[in-house]
Amino acid sequence: MQKTHILELLKQVSAGKVDPEQALLQLKQEPFTDIGYAKVDTHRELRQGAAEVIYGAGKTAQQICGICAALQEKGQKHILITRLDDEKARQIQKTLAADYDPVSHLAIIGGNNNEERPQGIIAVICAGTSDIAVAEEAARSAEFFGNQVLRIYDAGVAGLHRLLAHLDEIMSARVIIAVAGMEGALASVVAGLVDCPVVAVPTSIGYGANLGGISALLSMINSCAGGIGVVNIDNGFGAACLASRINHIGK
Amino acid sequence: MQKTHILELLKQVSAGKVDPEQALLQLKQEPFTDIGYAKVDTHRELRQGAAEVIYGAGKTAQQICGICAALQEKGQKHILITRLDDEKARQIQKTLAADYDPVSHLAIIGGNNNEERPQGIIAVICAGTSDIAVAEEAARSAEFFGNQVLRIYDAGVAGLHRLLAHLDEIMSARVIIAVAGMEGALASVVAGLVDCPVVAVPTSIGYGANLGGISALLSMINSCAGGIGVVNIDNGFGAACLASRINHIGK
Amino acid sequence: MQKTHILELLKQVSAGKVDPEQALLQLKQEPFTDIGYAKVDTHRELRQGAAEVIYGAGKTAQQICGICAALQEKGQKHILITRLDDEKARQIQKTLAADYDPVSHLAIIGGNNNEERPQGIIAVICAGTSDIAVAEEAARSAEFFGNQVLRIYDAGVAGLHRLLAHLDEIMSARVIIAVAGMEGALASVVAGLVDCPVVAVPTSIGYGANLGGISALLSMINSCAGGIGVVNIDNGFGAACLASRINHIGK
Amino acid sequence: MQKTHILELLKQVSAGKVDPEQALLQLKQEPFTDIGYAKVDTHRELRQGAAEVIYGAGKTAQQICGICAALQEKGQKHILITRLDDEKARQIQKTLAADYDPVSHLAIIGGNNNEERPQGIIAVICAGTSDIAVAEEAARSAEFFGNQVLRIYDAGVAGLHRLLAHLDEIMSARVIIAVAGMEGALASVVAGLVDCPVVAVPTSIGYGANLGGISALLSMINSCAGGIGVVNIDNGFGAACLASRINHIGK
Amino acid sequence: MQKTHILELLKQVSAGKVDPEQALLQLKQEPFTDIGYAKVDTHRELRQGAAEVIYGAGKTAQQICGICAALQEKGQKHILITRLDDEKARQIQKTLAADYDPVSHLAIIGGNNNEERPQGIIAVICAGTSDIAVAEEAARSAEFFGNQVLRIYDAGVAGLHRLLAHLDEIMSARVIIAVAGMEGALASVVAGLVDCPVVAVPTSIGYGANLGGISALLSMINSCAGGIGVVNIDNGFGAACLASRINHIGK
Amino acid sequence: MQKTHILELLKQVSAGKVDPEQALLQLKQEPFTDIGYAKVDTHRELRQGAAEVIYGAGKTAQQICGICAALQEKGQKHILITRLDDEKARQIQKTLAADYDPVSHLAIIGGNNNEERPQGIIAVICAGTSDIAVAEEAARSAEFFGNQVLRIYDAGVAGLHRLLAHLDEIMSARVIIAVAGMEGALASVVAGLVDCPVVAVPTSIGYGANLGGISALLSMINSCAGGIGVVNIDNGFGAACLASRINHIGK
Amino acid sequence: MQKTHILELLKQVSAGKVDPEQALLQLKQEPFTDIGYAKVDTHRELRQGAAEVIYGAGKTAQQICGICAALQEKGQKHILITRLDDEKARQIQKTLAADYDPVSHLAIIGGNNNEERPQGIIAVICAGTSDIAVAEEAARSAEFFGNQVLRIYDAGVAGLHRLLAHLDEIMSARVIIAVAGMEGALASVVAGLVDCPVVAVPTSIGYGANLGGISALLSMINSCAGGIGVVNIDNGFGAACLASRINHIGK
Amino acid sequence: MQKTHILELLKQVSAGKVDPEQALLQLKQEPFTDIGYAKVDTHRELRQGAAEVIYGAGKTAQQICGICAALQEKGQKHILITRLDDEKARQIQKTLAADYDPVSHLAIIGGNNNEERPQGIIAVICAGTSDIAVAEEAARSAEFFGNQVLRIYDAGVAGLHRLLAHLDEIMSARVIIAVAGMEGALASVVAGLVDCPVVAVPTSIGYGANLGGISALLSMINSCAGGIGVVNIDNGFGAACLASRINHIGK
Repeated sequence: MQKTHILELLKQVSAGKVDPEQALLQLKQEPFTDIGYAKVDTHRELRQGAAEVIYGAGKTAQQICGICAALQEKGQKHILITRLDDEKARQIQKTLAADYDPVSHLAIIGGNNNEERPQGIIAVICAGTSDIAVAEEAARSAEFFGNQVLRIYDAGVAGLHRLLAHLDEIMSARVIIAVAGMEGALASVVAGLVDCPVVAVPTSIGYGANLGGISALLSMINSCAGGIGVVNIDNGFGAACLASRINHIGK
Repeated sequence: MQKTHILELLKQVSAGKVDPEQALLQLKQEPFTDIGYAKVDTHRELRQGAAEVIYGAGKTAQQICGICAALQEKGQKHILITRLDDEKARQIQKTLAADYDPVSHLAIIGGNNNEERPQGIIAVICAGTSDIAVAEEAARSAEFFGNQVLRIYDAGVAGLHRLLAHLDEIMSARVIIAVAGMEGALASVVAGLVDCPVVAVPTSIGYGANLGGISALLSMINSCAGGIGVVNIDNGFGAACLASRINHIGK
Repeated sequence: MQKTHILELLKQVSAGKVDPEQALLQLKQEPFTDIGYAKVDTHRELRQGAAEVIYGAGKTAQQICGICAALQEKGQKHILITRLDDEKARQIQKTLAADYDPVSHLAIIGGNNNEERPQGIIAVICAGTSDIAVAEEAARSAEFFGNQVLRIYDAGVAGLHRLLAHLDEIMSARVIIAVAGMEGALASVVAGLVDCPVVAVPTSIGYGANLGGISALLSMINSCAGGIGVVNIDNGFGAACLASRINHIGK
Repeated sequence: MQKTHILELLKQVSAGKVDPEQALLQLKQEPFTDIGYAKVDTHRELRQGAAEVIYGAGKTAQQICGICAALQEKGQKHILITRLDDEKARQIQKTLAADYDPVSHLAIIGGNNNEERPQGIIAVICAGTSDIAVAEEAARSAEFFGNQVLRIYDAGVAGLHRLLAHLDEIMSARVIIAVAGMEGALASVVAGLVDCPVVAVPTSIGYGANLGGISALLSMINSCAGGIGVVNIDNGFGAACLASRINHIGK
Repeated sequence: MQKTHILELLKQVSAGKVDPEQALLQLKQEPFTDIGYAKVDTHRELRQGAAEVIYGAGKTAQQICGICAALQEKGQKHILITRLDDEKARQIQKTLAADYDPVSHLAIIGGNNNEERPQGIIAVICAGTSDIAVAEEAARSAEFFGNQVLRIYDAGVAGLHRLLAHLDEIMSARVIIAVAGMEGALASVVAGLVDCPVVAVPTSIGYGANLGGISALLSMINSCAGGIGVVNIDNGFGAACLASRINHIGK
Repeated sequence: MQKTHILELLKQVSAGKVDPEQALLQLKQEPFTDIGYAKVDTHRELRQGAAEVIYGAGKTAQQICGICAALQEKGQKHILITRLDDEKARQIQKTLAADYDPVSHLAIIGGNNNEERPQGIIAVICAGTSDIAVAEEAARSAEFFGNQVLRIYDAGVAGLHRLLAHLDEIMSARVIIAVAGMEGALASVVAGLVDCPVVAVPTSIGYGANLGGISALLSMINSCAGGIGVVNIDNGFGAACLASRINHIGK
Repeated sequence: MQKTHILELLKQVSAGKVDPEQALLQLKQEPFTDIGYAKVDTHRELRQGAAEVIYGAGKTAQQICGICAALQEKGQKHILITRLDDEKARQIQKTLAADYDPVSHLAIIGGNNNEERPQGIIAVICAGTSDIAVAEEAARSAEFFGNQVLRIYDAGVAGLHRLLAHLDEIMSARVIIAVAGMEGALASVVAGLVDCPVVAVPTSIGYGANLGGISALLSMINSCAGGIGVVNIDNGFGAACLASRINHIGK
Repeated sequence: MQKTHILELLKQVSAGKVDPEQALLQLKQEPFTDIGYAKVDTHRELRQGAAEVIYGAGKTAQQICGICAALQEKGQKHILITRLDDEKARQIQKTLAADYDPVSHLAIIGGNNNEERPQGIIAVICAGTSDIAVAEEAARSAEFFGNQVLRIYDAGVAGLHRLLAHLDEIMSARVIIAVAGMEGALASVVAGLVDCPVVAVPTSIGYGANLGGISALLSMINSCAGGIGVVNIDNGFGAACLASRINHIGK
């Protein structure tokens, strides 16, 4: 569906090098590999600047291995699998040289993609120790996409000085990922202190009226501070995606 | 229903000064005046340390005047009417010498109750200019109950220095009322800075996913900071009630 | 961030005893110990009148022990760990002399902090037998902070006489913590009977439309009675924090 | 669809008095009058023990008059119209001798249906003055259905003695309708005091987290007291329906 | 708190048979037995027409046995325990002669209370086979309170003829308990067919947007048919309470 | 984006009749007219079997007229405008020969599209008189798309015989649109009686816990009967779209 | 309750072949078999065009076998059991020759019902690999009802070309079932591309703010594209029911 | 609270140029002007890279003018006022040379801030004509902050070709703001097509189950596509803030 690709194809048709029926076929078949239970997107890196990532939840170990094989066959060197539980990780490691982190539930094959490292730093700040699993999902995913990451953990607003103590580091970041559960006030306070984009990740940490993270999500969406973009609850990976896209601008 | 009152009555029955049927009658009839559409609680001051207050919303001007008359007849000097709109206030002022404030929608008859002024100060802090209506409902109600009030307005967390600039005043308060809409982060930040009780009032200020104040309410209920008690959305009066009860301890 | 602390530091800078760069460093580093996964707040007692408490949920036994070690190293004598499950408690007890209560899921190291016991009593009232776990979290936490606690359990409004029988005890309390699930009516009834502050704790006890405690929470937030501050569902500890701050006023 | 009616019709078919096609026609057409925008149920009194009542909201004055005409043509003497606003009432009164009450928004044509008055009394208790509109909808509807009604208004739980003062009257009722907004605790307290059925009506009175009455509804549905049946928010009429069905048992 | 009881006590005080302090004590201590974790209500049968029932969820087997012992000591012959799981039932049966039904999760000690059987019949209708657990909780509880019960199961509105086939039985009932999950339409259809009170019980049966029974609850609360009182989701016992109170009217 | 269109274009490119750049331009520009505030879709009839319809809410009369002009210029004969209020309709009628119906808030220009009338009938059934506005939006929209429509109004389940009386007509329909507010039970009952597809339209009719139609929506989504597809609350037009697509199958 | 059936019965009554009481009995008893815990609907195929299907969740293996026996006794050849877990399937297979699919959790006895195969094709499209379980429930159920099914899996809108590659197949379908979790955008995109009816199935796939599928459900209900009917979350079977009813039109 | 500022101040104290008490005062008073009802933040531009913006909703015209005066006095040249209604705008224009746009409800004083224009383009895409008000709030705010903006309006996914026609323009943007109501699918589709950051703005456009924009918000938060940051419903200004911060990176 890329403009330049369509144009080139049309030119080849025009030049008689490709006939119309084949062109249509090519438009339809080329950019992914269909393995039945999945259409493996082998062009995503070109189109979106980041290789396809495998969402591990709801897939069997066998399906994940199949998708990895399809990606590797098409030449993808670095593969990231998210939301993997320990048991599935063990099964996958029988077949694939996957580096698995039980805190963030990420597995990485082929190491991080450090080919085009941008200059900026992504700071990942989290409010409490219990938010670290999500913060690590964000930090490690961002590193997978080739970014430098600075971690500032357990810096919630109930003890403001813990956050303010890192103010100079925070102010030097190009993008900030703020991770917080409970009332999620961290995002507002951080965004009020800096002039860079803030990606806010609500977490499901808390209990009772935290509504599984909806409370923190609402806080972040309703922030009185500007410059905040919010992602789904516990979606450290999604935050890393957005932060990485921002950090790669101008590279 | 007061223990001492029941005991005294039983003693009089025992002494033959009051006969049982009359005692039962007295138990039932005495502590309020029934004017049909309302049972005016003329003993609340004794029982709860604060005179009955008239909730103006959903009552006609005529009903409000009737209740005031019943209270005045029983000797209540200071009367507070909450949630009064401008039109009803005008109608009431035809009959009663009511002092009406259009910002807080409070009317006061007979001035504030300054008989027993406690030493402590109640600080009312609000996040934005738009929260002032609720903050004033809290501040003026607290003053009605005889408290000294310190107002710190437009001190939201998006510009943290505006709050920190008042840190010494805030730390000198005996109770703090924190009023905020949108994401309501003010309560958490304030409670993390002080050692006194914080009464948090979510407001309906905001739009979209603020859900009419539910977002701020959830933030405050889920606060990662300790020492916060939350009241209903826009319930400045309720916050003043609680803060006043706290401030009157030990007097 | 304490005013007096900043002022003193500035004075030392002014007196040439501390040079500016060091002052800045001190402002940033001193009030907590950073152990990687946590920034242990060793000044909270000074700042907020109560020592830092460890929220056990979402932390590993190893992390909890690490935080305890950091606190003990800084001289904190009394440590409270909340929301600990039986298994983690057993693991912690291998390393630390922790007193664990399986009903309230609290562990205490170094006993209660009875140094500055206020005169007032905190009454903890709960509606049903099933609410006792939360009520005990409140009662034991309040005792940890040095308060005297009176327990009145299974006194829900479906059998009003069970509550009224304790009216004189209830009326003698300086603060009341009302714990109730289901429809949470206890808070309104209690607050209507007394003149002291009432801290209301909704519990998740119930089923169906109790929505995991949201129903009780809404009841308490919407109470027609004044003087109530509400905390999160099942947050017995938070209620104790607030009640203790109130009870320590004037001490 | 009434069993006895079907049987009788089948007997007539069997006796040759009615032929099958006509029987089918009769089964379909007879029990209501179709006036295009409404199918006026002229048999509801037989089937359900109470004549059809017109829900005025969302109908034009013209439609209401048309339905009344159809009912009167079929011989219905007493007609009740609910949820009528003042303007529509004025328009209807041009055509029909309707008795309109602006508090309850009910109009009655042909007076109450006092033919079969049951012995029991329905007590209508409401929590606050602002709940009276709903309470009157319940009380007047119950009277329309031929019941004796006892009104006890402004007896909310924040001043328990106001309710307890009427305990003997309350205990003498055959059914109680408890009307309350805000936290709706009245229903639980009343049901804990009596042994008769309690019909609970949540009202939309309140603000903020009352969620337009959902808070009171949840309270009543989750009541810790037995013997309560709940109707929709502000549905005084529905409560009267149920209470009247109960009161007419055994007559 | 019973009027007649208070009056009698006052008369004894007046006659000098009871002195005031003792009267106050008696007012407070007599109607329940306090066993620490529970205040066993031994007068509920007098006050509410039904003996105290033990809500088994959230209590330990030991606590339940303790409460049973207290009730038996005060002379209560028939005891009902609700929401008991199989394991706790087994433990209780070691100590007590309890008759446990694993479908309804009820245990009964001392058999049903058939002393005062009312003439009317309570029909329990449920929509699907999966709703039977709740329907049986209702049916068996109603039988425990001495009522005759008629069961009509799997009669949901998707096959209307299954319901209509029982129309004559349904119309002969004095009260109907309608039990349904999913969209809960059964209650509306039943209430439109009969002239007796209908107690509606939403169940949590269903999936997805049934929201754990909230969908059925909302349906029943918003029913276009009159004469319906709704209880909590899966609250078969509560429905039986209400239906029994209705059925015992006039006995 | 139509396959045949792309293929044809590619063939023309291949034949040298169209050059590649122009082909790309054509792919992008042709199927709609861009008038700044709107991209008028002039090919929707070809692509989706129904001409573009103008959603009137949130557009000014001027914008609507501009879109109509663009459509007419491209040769669209029949135009439907939905959700038009009376005032905007008046303004539009100054410029355009629009036939406006104030009940359904629809305006039609150029009459209904009766060119290809399918044989089947769409039955529109609504529960109450207050639901007629939505039912008429469905009925008139279906007629605009060339369908025959049968209207059966005020046939709610509280008086089941009113519905059953039309059973033969209902069973003869090819598609049924069931329109109901409050508890929305009509959809389940209808779908249980017929073998054709049922399109269910929840309405916002009702009050209190109807949550603006969410209650009826949940009922319909959770229906125990099969063969129901649900559209948005009050979306009579959307129901007509779906029903018309179904009715045009095989034509 | 079928018109023709009632008419025929009345004719027999009229002809003296059936007497009225027996006719009433027949009206009531015939169309289902009552086996106590279930009323097995043996006429549903005639009435609704599809044989009764057994909802396996919440039924014991024994109950399911009993219902199958009742259906087989009445001559039903093809039986579908939905929402069966692996363990119950194993138990059922001891008694019955059931073909069980662990992905869709469907069991089929007697094979698919291919007697009256319609010409049209039902396309089942799903967004991600994790949605396949629901998609297979839809696809296999549709095949059970005799339809031809085309499967297009893992074609979500994040990689639009994967969907567009199948555009010609999609456009050839008579009905489309679109299955998607997370934000459920697939349904809107598909419905904008085709002119046939689209049945949308939200799934519970996702996490955090997907609210167990409510997010996808809301997306589909609010679709800006016409021609979509929505079923319950994860209700692949219900989608197949509706799609099959549509596909069988005109057959 | 800026680190460099604190350091400089400390140095001056150290050098004896500023005495400690004055330093503390300066720390507190300097960075804003307190005008009673507002603390005007005159340093926000330095701290956050964008001058303070006035949120017009909930402020009186007089208050807004007062804040503008305070800003102008401190030298702020460009002022933006958001969420202004027509009436307030008229009042403000009496005093100030404000340029008011009635579509976006923005007023600008002193023109756009074009001093430091970044090279990148911000594309603002909206789904329907009714979303233009929010899209314009985003576009004009972004221009106020000095960005170049490309507008692509009425490009919703129901007619995908309208969006794809602009694919080359969209792909050339540095940041995209996607504005959509109803089901909000636009954000997912756009984010799947590009490799730049996407800021998603849900709007309240729609009706019924759109829940005032919550439906679109949930869609965007749950997007299956990566690289999306979500802001509050109708928060065009907030989206512009975030997009501008991103676009100014590296400038």
